Amino acid sequence: MTMDIALVAGGAGFIGSHLCRALSERGFEVICLDNLQTSRVSNLDSLADLPRYSFVEADIVAPLPQAVLDKADRITRIYNCACAASPPQYQADPEHTMLTNVVGTHHLLRLAEQTGARFLLTSTSEVYGDPEVHPQVEGYRGWVSCTGPRACYDEGKRAAEAMTFDYARMKRAEVRVARIFNTYGPHMHPDDGRVVSNLVCQALRGEPITIYGDGSQTRSFCYVSDMVEGLIRLMESDIDGTEPVNLGNPQEFTIGELLSKVLAIVPSDGGVTHHDLPQDDPRRRRPDIARARSLLGWEPRVALDDGLPQTARWFARELGATLPLAVAAE
Amino acid sequence: MTMDIALVAGGAGFIGSHLCRALSERGFEVICLDNLQTSRVSNLDSLADLPRYSFVEADIVAPLPQAVLDKADRITRIYNCACAASPPQYQADPEHTMLTNVVGTHHLLRLAEQTGARFLLTSTSEVYGDPEVHPQVEGYRGWVSCTGPRACYDEGKRAAEAMTFDYARMKRAEVRVARIFNTYGPHMHPDDGRVVSNLVCQALRGEPITIYGDGSQTRSFCYVSDMVEGLIRLMESDIDGTEPVNLGNPQEFTIGELLSKVLAIVPSDGGVTHHDLPQDDPRRRRPDIARARSLLGWEPRVALDDGLPQTARWFARELGATLPLAVAAE
Repeated sequence: MTMDIALVAGGAGFIGSHLCRALSERGFEVICLDNLQTSRVSNLDSLADLPRYSFVEADIVAPLPQAVLDKADRITRIYNCACAASPPQYQADPEHTMLTNVVGTHHLLRLAEQTGARFLLTSTSEVYGDPEVHPQVEGYRGWVSCTGPRACYDEGKRAAEAMTFDYARMKRAEVRVARIFNTYGPHMHPDDGRVVSNLVCQALRGEPITIYGDGSQTRSFCYVSDMVEGLIRLMESDIDGTEPVNLGNPQEFTIGELLSKVLAIVPSDGGVTHHDLPQDDPRRRRPDIARARSLLGWEPRVALDDGLPQTARWFARELGATLPLAVAAE
Repeated sequence: MTMDIALVAGGAGFIGSHLCRALSERGFEVICLDNLQTSRVSNLDSLADLPRYSFVEADIVAPLPQAVLDKADRITRIYNCACAASPPQYQADPEHTMLTNVVGTHHLLRLAEQTGARFLLTSTSEVYGDPEVHPQVEGYRGWVSCTGPRACYDEGKRAAEAMTFDYARMKRAEVRVARIFNTYGPHMHPDDGRVVSNLVCQALRGEPITIYGDGSQTRSFCYVSDMVEGLIRLMESDIDGTEPVNLGNPQEFTIGELLSKVLAIVPSDGGVTHHDLPQDDPRRRRPDIARARSLLGWEPRVALDDGLPQTARWFARELGATLPLAVAAE
């Protein structure tokens, strides 16, 4: 029996690894392609039990490896989840971040053109920058600095979107573009510098908890299982792929509220330290998901009060930390 | 005697060819690097008399050619003027437009890092998109669609800026970024689809003159000699290169006013045809050049009433058309 193959670039990453499992469960043979730059090998270990699964270590900035090309005729879905996504990680080598988005997407789009596979770009709410429009709708063009320290990622994703939509306009490939808002859950990197992992891990370690600014800036947090469901629905839908689709949880919390919820799950006496807001840090971020609701029948189902304990339990295992019995037992 | 070399990528193009001559006149040995995608061979012919000048046919999307690398130790200035710049030309192969800006800039920045040469990116007023702020100051983040048909160029340039400023931030190269507003003059491509060449050439050919929209949209037109002077001053200045600098003529004209001036120079009975405005076409465009004035002591010196006849005379020669005696004789 030959099976359709889903290629997941960045498949060893946080969202990518959950996506690999979900695609396998839906009957795809899965190729996970990853350069292991910021991904965790333990994420790969979690995939080892999948049937008809292979891992290829490669960087999509380079021409695609033979191990992928050898199976190209069976690849029907290409998910591009490849890019370091937290500021400390993507700023460590900004040139590589830009090239991952532009050259990497170029290589995968070429593969889609050659194979007829459908291509999905995981873009980001960062294309909206520090938004002046709230909540963010897909037609909003954003307030993005192309000269600042976040530009390698923000402008890299915008450039990747531009190229993806050009492929669609020229009928070179069938494409989908998801703009992913903050997502959290197991398989996050404990030290990726993002707020959920920061707060949970600092609390678990009893370290002072870092709050940037006064904590009044807002974010919306989507649990990873919801995000993966949205990505697959978008890929499998028959929508016109020439417009992006926001995916995220529209429920908005201040960082201060998030901190309270984390401390209720992971009591800590490490205290809180306040730092200045980083340059170009967005003050508010919340998706308008009307398009995803109407086109995909999708909306998030996991509330923060349910997803956060699951995330804390996973981090506790990773870090060898202990949780209060009531949380740990669930 | 060994001389410093200025490498001009896109040196066979409109601005690039004038820049090659000006740099030669200032004592540089000049290497003109061009893929001749949209450049005119006649522009190259105009450079043939330059002393210590060489032309290398190559595409900066590919690794730099040996003919450039062989002289790398004498390259002290790198100007990146390489990219199709008019919508019909840059939209013909949008993927190549994006790669020219991102991968091409990457290759030239690497060369700057290796040689210690100073690097100047010719960015564009298109990074402001269809601006909500008027006139445009460098701090304005723009109103740019990253999904539309102009995105390959606009977002490509934004991405090139991002990478250039990352090189500066990381002290990998000394950089300058010019945001070039509408420029006109001899060596423009007669069929590049931009408004000055369109109007002048259609009038010279006695064809109906194409006006998009109602002609009330504005542009500001900088004569090419002013632009080249600005680029060289920016390159040679000791300013902190971590901010872009607008270069353009702040005098603003409606397209209707431009048409009147063109018809006064090139009488035509071809009439005028009106077309819809193209998607994402900016309604107004005028540079704030306070930074260039204060940092470089630069401002345009050639008025439209002086530059337009010179341009018309050049186009008339190119097209073998005749001008009224009063204009032709000057």
